[in-house]
Amino acid sequence: MSDFTVSLQAAERFIKENDRFLVVNHVNPDGDATGSLLAMGWLLRQLGKQVTLVNEGPTPEKFMFLPGASDILDASKADVQKHDVVITCDCADKARVGQIADWFAEGCQLLNIDHHPTNDGYGTVNLVRSEAAATAEVLYDFIQAMKLPVSKETAVCLYTGLLTDTGGFRYSNTTSHVMGIASSLLSTGVEPGKVAERVLETITKPYLALLTRVLPTIEFSESGQVASMAVSLSDMLETGAADEDTEGLVNYGRNVEGVEVGILYKQKAENQVKVSLRSRERVDVSAVAKSLGGGGHVRAAGCTIHGTIEEAKRILSQKLREAFQKGEKS
Amino acid sequence: MSDFTVSLQAAERFIKENDRFLVVNHVNPDGDATGSLLAMGWLLRQLGKQVTLVNEGPTPEKFMFLPGASDILDASKADVQKHDVVITCDCADKARVGQIADWFAEGCQLLNIDHHPTNDGYGTVNLVRSEAAATAEVLYDFIQAMKLPVSKETAVCLYTGLLTDTGGFRYSNTTSHVMGIASSLLSTGVEPGKVAERVLETITKPYLALLTRVLPTIEFSESGQVASMAVSLSDMLETGAADEDTEGLVNYGRNVEGVEVGILYKQKAENQVKVSLRSRERVDVSAVAKSLGGGGHVRAAGCTIHGTIEEAKRILSQKLREAFQKGEKS
Repeated sequence: MSDFTVSLQAAERFIKENDRFLVVNHVNPDGDATGSLLAMGWLLRQLGKQVTLVNEGPTPEKFMFLPGASDILDASKADVQKHDVVITCDCADKARVGQIADWFAEGCQLLNIDHHPTNDGYGTVNLVRSEAAATAEVLYDFIQAMKLPVSKETAVCLYTGLLTDTGGFRYSNTTSHVMGIASSLLSTGVEPGKVAERVLETITKPYLALLTRVLPTIEFSESGQVASMAVSLSDMLETGAADEDTEGLVNYGRNVEGVEVGILYKQKAENQVKVSLRSRERVDVSAVAKSLGGGGHVRAAGCTIHGTIEEAKRILSQKLREAFQKGEKS
Repeated sequence: MSDFTVSLQAAERFIKENDRFLVVNHVNPDGDATGSLLAMGWLLRQLGKQVTLVNEGPTPEKFMFLPGASDILDASKADVQKHDVVITCDCADKARVGQIADWFAEGCQLLNIDHHPTNDGYGTVNLVRSEAAATAEVLYDFIQAMKLPVSKETAVCLYTGLLTDTGGFRYSNTTSHVMGIASSLLSTGVEPGKVAERVLETITKPYLALLTRVLPTIEFSESGQVASMAVSLSDMLETGAADEDTEGLVNYGRNVEGVEVGILYKQKAENQVKVSLRSRERVDVSAVAKSLGGGGHVRAAGCTIHGTIEEAKRILSQKLREAFQKGEKS
């Protein structure tokens, strides 16, 4: 029997042997954290259990259409309730739950359900599969293992988790298994267009204002193979954009036809610039980032430069010229 | 036996009884047209058939990564070859093949494989299912019915067709069956991240230049429920953007939090404005468009106004106010 099968059985016992559950996820919950929290709630109620669902803060507006979302408590506004039986969803380590840790009774039993490769197995029972694209995938397989039906409510929550953690089925973690689960979830009546519109396509006014200011800063170099954009401190302040709003901007440059490397220069302080690098096929941007004290993956990396945006551009320009020369040689 | 099952059997005979095939798709081929053309080519070669694949013009650069794409003839540059046996992919009527019609021998046998509800059954054999999201879906079901294996080459072509015609699995035509096919195709080794990057995420410099000019024109009205943007003749000329580059722009407005209706005003001539309307949940934009001589669907419609962009805005503003009042009453 595989380790995961053993975990499935232990997790099933954990659920069957207890009656009252606190279910939590991580701070700044994303679609997978929210979706798996809610799906776990539906699963437990289906089994006749008592359930308390908690987020550290308010549930993000774009997930409020999910069934049961209005029942999630906001820990920042609710009185602490100590619980002896806890389930954490999508949390790589115990600290990820933030202030909700105050709700855990000393010596509480904990089921850790997650998919992060860095998960440190902090639970009493750990249902963790790092090959899974999302915690929603782990949870779906768990429900299947328990031979329970998947309700439409559970399905839309799990679908949201899959959709968001695979970048709308666009990342390389979109496996045949993920698509098979998506197929099964849609058969319950989930409306994929509505979910995609709510969780992937809705944008905020500050994000749009930021995009409007940043697009005109695009510059091409290395014969059109490098596209860079810049975000100043005043861009952030004057648009009211959140930190997360800058995340996808680097892709606008990288996605231009003929571009191999996209760069975003983001001013963090008067004399500090965060550099995000994305490449398509040839250039190892983690090597570039490492040579400047940063790190990351071959296709997505970053570093911090002490200086102005213009200084950062000069430094990166030199490093990238070298990287392209290396790429052409190899 | 259903009509579609009868068609499957007729299509199978059509393929088995012939040896040399001309396979074509529609003018300005999209991902489904190109993907199903190529997949049909792989299928026929797998059966030992001789195949000629033709596009009316060059195959779009973003589909050139598909296996076999470089073997597609460009009819605008190749000598006409008359063929007695023809397969059309993704063409609702015969005129959709454009100049390639010159390649059809008089009285040629024709297999029409498609998914458009408007398909008029112009083939000798018609394999048409209007409930299918893509011609690639019809073709996959056909390969299954013939009990043939799906090669990785065929799979990546079909996956591209599904991905593009469902808007990256975001449109409401993304059914459980579509996702089941996607799951099966991925199991052959297709890399979903690479396909998505090539066919969905790559943008042209003229498109980016157009977006950069159009975003600053956004205006909100009706207490933030309407977001409109405008494209002038000079925007198109000076950026070198193609007509299709304006297609997605209206969504930037519609996707803003709190917005119900997105509008794009596109100047077509000195005194003519094309108006595209998109709504989210409440407003019937087809009614608005119809009242101005246009048409469309409840959530996506359009009309043409004779006048300047400013005049079009005034006319639409009045019509939308009425539509919102109606929406609130109902």
